[in-house]
Amino acid sequence: MQETCLFTPGPLSLSSDVKDAMRVDLGSRDETFKQVTQRVRDRLLHISGTDKSHSAVLMQGSGTFALEAALATFLGATDKALVCINGLYGERIARILEKSGKNFETLLCSAALPIDVAAVERIICRDKQFTHLCFVHCETTTGLINPVKSLLEIGRRNGLVTVVDAMSSFGGLRLDDDIDILVSSGNKCIEAPAGVAFAIVSNRLLASGKSSARSFCFDMMDQWQHFEQHREWRTTPPTHIVQAFDKALERLIEEGIPARNARYSRVQEKLLRGMRALGFKTIIPQEHQSPICLAFCSIELVPDEAAFAAYYGALAQQGIYIYAKFHEPTTTFRIGCIGQIQDFWIDKLLAVTAAHFRISPSILAA
Amino acid sequence: MQETCLFTPGPLSLSSDVKDAMRVDLGSRDETFKQVTQRVRDRLLHISGTDKSHSAVLMQGSGTFALEAALATFLGATDKALVCINGLYGERIARILEKSGKNFETLLCSAALPIDVAAVERIICRDKQFTHLCFVHCETTTGLINPVKSLLEIGRRNGLVTVVDAMSSFGGLRLDDDIDILVSSGNKCIEAPAGVAFAIVSNRLLASGKSSARSFCFDMMDQWQHFEQHREWRTTPPTHIVQAFDKALERLIEEGIPARNARYSRVQEKLLRGMRALGFKTIIPQEHQSPICLAFCSIELVPDEAAFAAYYGALAQQGIYIYAKFHEPTTTFRIGCIGQIQDFWIDKLLAVTAAHFRISPSILAA
Repeated sequence: MQETCLFTPGPLSLSSDVKDAMRVDLGSRDETFKQVTQRVRDRLLHISGTDKSHSAVLMQGSGTFALEAALATFLGATDKALVCINGLYGERIARILEKSGKNFETLLCSAALPIDVAAVERIICRDKQFTHLCFVHCETTTGLINPVKSLLEIGRRNGLVTVVDAMSSFGGLRLDDDIDILVSSGNKCIEAPAGVAFAIVSNRLLASGKSSARSFCFDMMDQWQHFEQHREWRTTPPTHIVQAFDKALERLIEEGIPARNARYSRVQEKLLRGMRALGFKTIIPQEHQSPICLAFCSIELVPDEAAFAAYYGALAQQGIYIYAKFHEPTTTFRIGCIGQIQDFWIDKLLAVTAAHFRISPSILAA
Repeated sequence: MQETCLFTPGPLSLSSDVKDAMRVDLGSRDETFKQVTQRVRDRLLHISGTDKSHSAVLMQGSGTFALEAALATFLGATDKALVCINGLYGERIARILEKSGKNFETLLCSAALPIDVAAVERIICRDKQFTHLCFVHCETTTGLINPVKSLLEIGRRNGLVTVVDAMSSFGGLRLDDDIDILVSSGNKCIEAPAGVAFAIVSNRLLASGKSSARSFCFDMMDQWQHFEQHREWRTTPPTHIVQAFDKALERLIEEGIPARNARYSRVQEKLLRGMRALGFKTIIPQEHQSPICLAFCSIELVPDEAAFAAYYGALAQQGIYIYAKFHEPTTTFRIGCIGQIQDFWIDKLLAVTAAHFRISPSILAA
């Protein structure tokens, strides 16, 4: 039994064997490590069911690094992107494009609702200059699932390159649709440590050989070509993390996405039931709620940042770590459902919550 | 005793306790992890003796990521850099500047000799537009140490911002001089796993608040301000690597740079003596040779890439990993002297080398 438990949307609590994979020191340019790298790339395609149509490009750093690299490389000077925003991570896509001087517009939607598909269609039909459609699959801000299928369909119908931030959903939710560029990271539903992210890019885009990157490190085309030609990273990879990533992918394939999804859903349901009994509400309609993380709200119990900090501290003192940030615009805090979370820890989280707010724990047994 | 040994200039063989630090799962925005991050930043300044004058900015990814971020942030549109090159890593600085459209010139020197200080002075005096002077401290291509003191003195005299790539030297060689921007990585002489790099930047540059970065991730000013204001990373840090980094810095401070340097020098001397007895030459004059890595050459034994591949394979089969690339321009291969390398492994490396080239091992005992 672990001594602490992370209820965060990643980095999260890892299994022992994934951590054991970090005990081996491999040479970053040695054949053994080349095989690990290739296996990670192959497994990502296998999991996403894109073996024939796409290629996986790994990138050092956080998920945002892979996202910036993908946008830097595949969004050219004459291109224009529509960024659909209903949370912090949609905002971040826009921020990346703004900083790098790319051409884009945003569609701002409510954080409590899925992206407005009809509005997306209207904007795209009005302006024929749009070449890329960007959105977040599961908004980690709220745990909301956006309507991927419909958005991709609009993209396809209008000949747009689709860029999907699947950071917190890849491996935990099925994604059967044909996405041109999917970006994600190892430290969410893959249950690997943080430090390696990736994009799964359509062979059509890669075959063009065209890169718009004005960055050495974030040139995803160059990184991809290097993987293909030399089976190596261009600059030093975080070897131990890549090894753990490989082990985590092996475990994900063994478990399968449906079973992993069901495991997260069980954690989510138990948390939901308990937190609701204690008086907390969710802000996302159940049909749009992912099993990745839950955003809870209670104006009475956690009205503001200070009240949240006290609650967070009470949990942390017992080895329970929820996401450490209060989201002011929606007056919510987040509890993650992914990673290695045992029932014992959920019970403990609920009991500590009841005690902190002086609610009789008997309410939980009801 | 470890089962394999890395004789590479990083990633390298780690100590057990550094690896143990990767067994703990911390929340990336939790107070405990904030303290780890702050400690890493403080320890880097302590080690470099720049507590009062500089600040440490950590960056996810390889050393090149931190290098690109530093150049992107602190080299403006009206600036011009002189890049001194005598190896692959000097070339890389130029490549980064080229890709990002920065204004620069290069001074190409022989890979077997230190950067030509007089030539640097001439070029800078001829063209008053230069604002930045960039060079590599220890060229990992050959293990050569460049004349830092003289180059910094030229920079100071001419009012240039000095940017030093101290990737493979930081922690292993004393660097007392006042560098404006020093860039390095955890996975060399600090003996941490790869995945986190850093820049140590003068407070003068940071206080300006000025950033020229046209990148969200590589905006080192923004990253620094975030560390200062929130003690947090802007995007997900590789938590396990940062924890190991912290432990590795603790060990470095305990050991001290002089003792660590002496440890590496002992490895280097033993390797040099043995490899010379077997007929290998070095290409760097002894007074410019670092104890970080050695570039060996033998036209008879290892004339080309194919001969090197066979030799590399023979070593790898015995669990010995030297740097996997042959350097064509100098017909050399590299053996690293840093990390946890026991005498047993050096003896084994020499014995396997003798056996592979059918040289009597008795020559090593002489």
